[in-house]
Amino acid sequence: MINDILHEECGVFGTSSPPDTDFQAAYSSYTALFALQHRGQHSAGIAVSDGKKISYKKGDGLVHEVFDGKSLELLHGHESISHVRYASKQGTSGVNAQPIVISHGGDEIALCFNGALTNSHHLRAETEERGGIFQTTGDAEIMLYIIVRAFLKTGSLESAVLIAMRELQGAFSILILTKNKMIAMRDPHGFRPLCVGKLGSSMIVASESCGLDSIGAVMLRDVAPGEVLVFEQGKMRSLDSGIKASESLCIFEHIYFARPDSVIDGVSVELARQEAGRCLGRVDMEDGDFLPDIVIGVPDSGLSAALGYSQQTGVPYANGFIKNRYIGRTFIQSSQGQREQSVRIKLNAMSSVVKGKRVMMIDDSIVRGTTIAHIVSILREAGAKEVHFRISSPPFKYPCFFGTDIPSRDQLIANRMTVDEIARKFDIDSLKYLRFSDLDKISAGLTCGYCHACFSGKYSLPIQ
Amino acid sequence: MINDILHEECGVFGTSSPPDTDFQAAYSSYTALFALQHRGQHSAGIAVSDGKKISYKKGDGLVHEVFDGKSLELLHGHESISHVRYASKQGTSGVNAQPIVISHGGDEIALCFNGALTNSHHLRAETEERGGIFQTTGDAEIMLYIIVRAFLKTGSLESAVLIAMRELQGAFSILILTKNKMIAMRDPHGFRPLCVGKLGSSMIVASESCGLDSIGAVMLRDVAPGEVLVFEQGKMRSLDSGIKASESLCIFEHIYFARPDSVIDGVSVELARQEAGRCLGRVDMEDGDFLPDIVIGVPDSGLSAALGYSQQTGVPYANGFIKNRYIGRTFIQSSQGQREQSVRIKLNAMSSVVKGKRVMMIDDSIVRGTTIAHIVSILREAGAKEVHFRISSPPFKYPCFFGTDIPSRDQLIANRMTVDEIARKFDIDSLKYLRFSDLDKISAGLTCGYCHACFSGKYSLPIQ
Amino acid sequence: MINDILHEECGVFGTSSPPDTDFQAAYSSYTALFALQHRGQHSAGIAVSDGKKISYKKGDGLVHEVFDGKSLELLHGHESISHVRYASKQGTSGVNAQPIVISHGGDEIALCFNGALTNSHHLRAETEERGGIFQTTGDAEIMLYIIVRAFLKTGSLESAVLIAMRELQGAFSILILTKNKMIAMRDPHGFRPLCVGKLGSSMIVASESCGLDSIGAVMLRDVAPGEVLVFEQGKMRSLDSGIKASESLCIFEHIYFARPDSVIDGVSVELARQEAGRCLGRVDMEDGDFLPDIVIGVPDSGLSAALGYSQQTGVPYANGFIKNRYIGRTFIQSSQGQREQSVRIKLNAMSSVVKGKRVMMIDDSIVRGTTIAHIVSILREAGAKEVHFRISSPPFKYPCFFGTDIPSRDQLIANRMTVDEIARKFDIDSLKYLRFSDLDKISAGLTCGYCHACFSGKYSLPIQ
Amino acid sequence: MINDILHEECGVFGTSSPPDTDFQAAYSSYTALFALQHRGQHSAGIAVSDGKKISYKKGDGLVHEVFDGKSLELLHGHESISHVRYASKQGTSGVNAQPIVISHGGDEIALCFNGALTNSHHLRAETEERGGIFQTTGDAEIMLYIIVRAFLKTGSLESAVLIAMRELQGAFSILILTKNKMIAMRDPHGFRPLCVGKLGSSMIVASESCGLDSIGAVMLRDVAPGEVLVFEQGKMRSLDSGIKASESLCIFEHIYFARPDSVIDGVSVELARQEAGRCLGRVDMEDGDFLPDIVIGVPDSGLSAALGYSQQTGVPYANGFIKNRYIGRTFIQSSQGQREQSVRIKLNAMSSVVKGKRVMMIDDSIVRGTTIAHIVSILREAGAKEVHFRISSPPFKYPCFFGTDIPSRDQLIANRMTVDEIARKFDIDSLKYLRFSDLDKISAGLTCGYCHACFSGKYSLPIQ
Repeated sequence: MINDILHEECGVFGTSSPPDTDFQAAYSSYTALFALQHRGQHSAGIAVSDGKKISYKKGDGLVHEVFDGKSLELLHGHESISHVRYASKQGTSGVNAQPIVISHGGDEIALCFNGALTNSHHLRAETEERGGIFQTTGDAEIMLYIIVRAFLKTGSLESAVLIAMRELQGAFSILILTKNKMIAMRDPHGFRPLCVGKLGSSMIVASESCGLDSIGAVMLRDVAPGEVLVFEQGKMRSLDSGIKASESLCIFEHIYFARPDSVIDGVSVELARQEAGRCLGRVDMEDGDFLPDIVIGVPDSGLSAALGYSQQTGVPYANGFIKNRYIGRTFIQSSQGQREQSVRIKLNAMSSVVKGKRVMMIDDSIVRGTTIAHIVSILREAGAKEVHFRISSPPFKYPCFFGTDIPSRDQLIANRMTVDEIARKFDIDSLKYLRFSDLDKISAGLTCGYCHACFSGKYSLPIQ
Repeated sequence: MINDILHEECGVFGTSSPPDTDFQAAYSSYTALFALQHRGQHSAGIAVSDGKKISYKKGDGLVHEVFDGKSLELLHGHESISHVRYASKQGTSGVNAQPIVISHGGDEIALCFNGALTNSHHLRAETEERGGIFQTTGDAEIMLYIIVRAFLKTGSLESAVLIAMRELQGAFSILILTKNKMIAMRDPHGFRPLCVGKLGSSMIVASESCGLDSIGAVMLRDVAPGEVLVFEQGKMRSLDSGIKASESLCIFEHIYFARPDSVIDGVSVELARQEAGRCLGRVDMEDGDFLPDIVIGVPDSGLSAALGYSQQTGVPYANGFIKNRYIGRTFIQSSQGQREQSVRIKLNAMSSVVKGKRVMMIDDSIVRGTTIAHIVSILREAGAKEVHFRISSPPFKYPCFFGTDIPSRDQLIANRMTVDEIARKFDIDSLKYLRFSDLDKISAGLTCGYCHACFSGKYSLPIQ
Repeated sequence: MINDILHEECGVFGTSSPPDTDFQAAYSSYTALFALQHRGQHSAGIAVSDGKKISYKKGDGLVHEVFDGKSLELLHGHESISHVRYASKQGTSGVNAQPIVISHGGDEIALCFNGALTNSHHLRAETEERGGIFQTTGDAEIMLYIIVRAFLKTGSLESAVLIAMRELQGAFSILILTKNKMIAMRDPHGFRPLCVGKLGSSMIVASESCGLDSIGAVMLRDVAPGEVLVFEQGKMRSLDSGIKASESLCIFEHIYFARPDSVIDGVSVELARQEAGRCLGRVDMEDGDFLPDIVIGVPDSGLSAALGYSQQTGVPYANGFIKNRYIGRTFIQSSQGQREQSVRIKLNAMSSVVKGKRVMMIDDSIVRGTTIAHIVSILREAGAKEVHFRISSPPFKYPCFFGTDIPSRDQLIANRMTVDEIARKFDIDSLKYLRFSDLDKISAGLTCGYCHACFSGKYSLPIQ
Repeated sequence: MINDILHEECGVFGTSSPPDTDFQAAYSSYTALFALQHRGQHSAGIAVSDGKKISYKKGDGLVHEVFDGKSLELLHGHESISHVRYASKQGTSGVNAQPIVISHGGDEIALCFNGALTNSHHLRAETEERGGIFQTTGDAEIMLYIIVRAFLKTGSLESAVLIAMRELQGAFSILILTKNKMIAMRDPHGFRPLCVGKLGSSMIVASESCGLDSIGAVMLRDVAPGEVLVFEQGKMRSLDSGIKASESLCIFEHIYFARPDSVIDGVSVELARQEAGRCLGRVDMEDGDFLPDIVIGVPDSGLSAALGYSQQTGVPYANGFIKNRYIGRTFIQSSQGQREQSVRIKLNAMSSVVKGKRVMMIDDSIVRGTTIAHIVSILREAGAKEVHFRISSPPFKYPCFFGTDIPSRDQLIANRMTVDEIARKFDIDSLKYLRFSDLDKISAGLTCGYCHACFSGKYSLPIQ
């Protein structure tokens, strides 16, 4: 195999309109991919159909790097699917960018998805035994082979998709585009989010509701776990796969992945994060007399929880850090010793705010601990009297197989050290994590169950 | 003249080290320009001297667009000056980028500055009568002619610079680099900030203290209005121009221009902004029983004042908007009607936070009113019950001639309409500005006086 | 199907070395692709194997646009294949670039070729019926499916390649790379050239001998039609497919496609072209008393034949045109009427040479007639008294199905008009083509037969 | 001084049209700069005036790298000047690109030139004493200072230009653009070429007549040494500077610099080169019985002389080398030993042509000898029996101060070694140069005298 299977976090977006629409699929997709860019910065792609043929453009890089005015102009059509992709390992350039577009029997099919298959090894081997060849390291080609094979048997794309829903195992929110249809499907567990909205006579599908907002569309509902939606010229039909499974939305979407202005499976991401902060505050209040002078969120992922903590405890919320928004991925560092100094260009502590204060920092998680070490150091230099940390999720101990790029177990610091050891290692005055039982509070209102395997080790699916 | 004189807001940064230093002037300047990038996004430049010759690189664009690893490697030296520039009108590409580097009598001189001359027409005409020619539309060439002319008379660069301090009128924080000296000077009124710091055996000068922080330098003090600092190999001498003038630091630095983590002339920008918010809250409390359900800052410029408002009034502070940080300057819009929809990609309101609420928005100023109109519209769509606005500065009524890019009087909305008219025009439930008298509160602690001409029309200098 | 099947003219290059070699496969391939660039300017790609895995880089554009220093550095290995490609229709960007790299059963296979299959419709349909999917519009994927399928049956790559030699029909010079082998194969008719050479302990395969020269390698021999060469660590084995077919090297390689410094199947391209010129001169001498004042080749394709004409007839050879070598593919033309004028930037006639002269122009062929019209017009303006044309190939009347990008029959001017009509249309004083019987003269010495279907309509293979 | 004075070979182009013309100055200039690109590849620039203001665009690189469609669209106007520049040392990027555009007294002036001043040190020093400053290392700023100073005295640009003609010494073909005039001037010695032509109602000025041809303009005549031409809206006036000087056109223009299709001061460059070849042939015939089997020109600079040699001697002319036209300036070489091999990618010898032959190579000059060494080596490898060299100019022994980039005396091989020593060093079977007295033959017909200082050491001007 070219590489080990890549686990990816991604974002998808799809549209369907009547042929005479003035809705511009390519420009709208381009706009929405900006809103979904936080879900993947390594490649981007858009495929559109005008009822006769599929045109597409994709490439490595951010949305604004992949597309220019000329490439958008060339993408005509009224149905579309599009994608942003995050790759844990950067493979050979461009080759894994989605959508993957194939031809079969004179028809073109484009496919993109968010998630990861847990039976990909098996499906890949089986396909190869039948003479199949693979040009990428991702799961999209596997999905296409499964669908094409089912189509050859049944002669119906809808039937083929329902068969694929059974054969594919793992996390997948898939969009499919043919000459005249756009299809959305969410795996029976509902690991990854997917929602549907409306703008005029156009139907829109997106990984997160912020993608709908970005083009002024109104959210209708989430795609149900195990549901298939078939769109033709702006008309939507729902097919029920009939597969029942433990519903397992990834709770990390609310904790970290999703944008705060999104609402996923009935729960606002912003409010969930504030609730996590309130839970942390409640524990601190219960635990006794200590309360800090100010509470600061690690920008940007800890801001909402810090606000919740402040609301719960009355501790003043403060802006303690400035994040430099001009630093791109290409900051040039001298080869010599100034490396350490230049990291502070990315994040600077406000001395006037933290000096002499007992500071409570809130962040969403600790994976390897790199960020936390840096923050403690600049806070101390800026004159903070004490530095405390609260983490708005339980200790992250188990790897994820459902489409997030999580390091192996031994790289997870919470797996190797106790909470006290971590606090000592990073010279933190106190450290607490969200209680596992508080996950129920931040997920209150979810229309489905949630996956907590990365905290509990209890996977909803057998892992091959 | 090639164009009308451009008024520019800019950032400067300079370093001086012993020749055997391991301080890397070019890489440090590059890093610090990122921290000062908010002061100018149109061009960037770095000039360094190794004691024998000046090398430089400059160009149009952001810091990361102008410099690459190769260009930084080629800039050897232990003294440097560097610059980021904001241009109200983009002139012919590249020509106005600073530092301007000239040769005269076998010596090279590089110069860059932040500010604007008020007697540039006069000085330019006079120089042309003597046979001078101008290749740019900015004031830097004028400054160089004045300095060179004074040098021809006195034979001393220090004397020439002191003469220039008298002949140049207006706002100027200037850095000069020769083969073996780096000179910093601040105009007698002190319109634009300039501070000095230290890192090891290197001396550092920067428009704002956040530039010092970015490379780990410690701030020593502000450069005094009318002061000239001469640096050689890390040694600093102060020359007193002896010119007395009304000290007039631009108060808009604290209100909007500067970065919150900077401390300018003794006052923290973050705390000044919080104080502005407290002043606004105090007025609301005094004015009677109305208090909103939540207070939200317009990102990013209104966040600090919103926090102050919340602290003063007890109204909960909320994150109400998500700003898309992937949108660059090149967002492609379709030529058709989707333009309106796509603006919301830049800023999205969080429905879950504002729905059904009486929302208090805080922003730093209203210039033309474009932003406010957009914010009101997306708040209403997101379900806000009422939308109130508080502005953390007095009404902006008079143009600025001291180096900020301010539209002419008739483009300033506060000049043409009353507060009530503005509120009605933008469909705001209530609108209040900071009281002029409260400027004293937010500037409390300044080591010098401040300029409020844009609010009061009282200029510290005659305008030609 | 995504598009109509594309017929392409391409160049291939492969290397095999011992693992401890100091031969640098990627840099040598890069160099050789420059020498083969005339065979394809639309995409380029290099794949190398280090015995463990295949690394590759490919993309749209010229060799110097696709590769930079960093990308070459990353391509480690001692066996390699590489490719330049010409596409008649530009498809979706990048997708058709070769080598195509696939994985199957844990092994990677890379493939690139020059030619075109005549049974691609059939093989594609058959593959799709078995569940195969196609991501490109070219024939390389078909070849890979056929080879993989044969491999599944036989368990041997060598056997699989020999089976593929039978199943594939048409023109193909194929290079294949696996973890530890490089394989070269030439179709039984030998439509496209392929030769093998040696440099130190490395074996080299190239479309033309100029590719060998470019890296200092010595040519050993041509790959025989129907032959398979297997290379491992610099060792070569020859497999005989046993298939007998009419040997049919494309005679247009000698007339136009190949570089003059190449020797193909035993015949020097330069000398073949000179011989064509001599044949043309002989006919003019036989035909009677007319002889021109000077003979000029259309740069660059007519130069060698013009020299032969001069040698035969004693008519002075002249440089009559200057070709602008700075014009790239991106010359910008104003939208208005200056288009006509600006075409002469590409080719300018030397008035001092042609003024008052009876000029004999030699070119290799007339396809649509665009070039000839332009040349006649600038010669007349430059003062030529008479303009005669001789074409160093017979009239081009029939389409090619063997890997060259030839327009359909009705676009071929020789198919619609007589020689006299063409001469009148372009205002030529006299026009003659090479006699069909003279093809034997220019191909004298060929180690195999040649294909003349484009002149005679007699195809060596049934066309589907 | 920023650097040592740069000596540059450049090309200029200017146009003047009625305001209502449909002649597009910017596009025509762009086209003509391609035709003049051989005169300078380091920077390019175009300035146009629409009667109100001057717009311009310039930058480092080839014409196609500096300009794109958008930049040409922005250059409106009916008068223009433009420039390509060759720099011996690459200075700080972009700063020396021409035209230089200045403003003075509310007026803009743009200037570009080909040549070099011999009194630049003096004029620069004098200007600096008056308070002038220099931003570039070239002579264009000096010219502007001189013209502006004269304008301040006389109030007339025409008078100022005539004064400058006296004060400037050396080689200069200058173009000047103001709001409503385009001025062309050629130094009294006429070192550098400059000619004038016509297209419709537009007047055109160019360094070489091939620039006129490129846009379809007809050549009228050369600009006379010491002549000033003033153009307004397509009308031309000639001013006589009245300065008499020894006319000294650089004979190297005909030998090497100019394009073969240009006619300069009455003599065709192509025919002059052929004559040089004939002179070389005549000497070989006189010298006795030796004659080679074939004669080959070093591409591209020796082709015309080789043709002349063949015409004179009857020795067959041959194409012996293929020059790779895809190699740009950025060919990437591996760091290791393959460097030598990869140089042959640029030039390959045709073995089929040279094998077993006594080869006569013709080139225009030997400067350092690098090229000749390479050619001898690949000819020997390709099987040439003997390698002879003839040089179509006398030995190059003295530096040039008139605008060509010639190395210092000790780098000139002809200065350090005899002809026999050079032949031995490069393993040449025989070597001869053009006889100095034959320069009169190749310049026969010139309307002015010529400069031969590089061969004779006799300079027409004192060198400071």
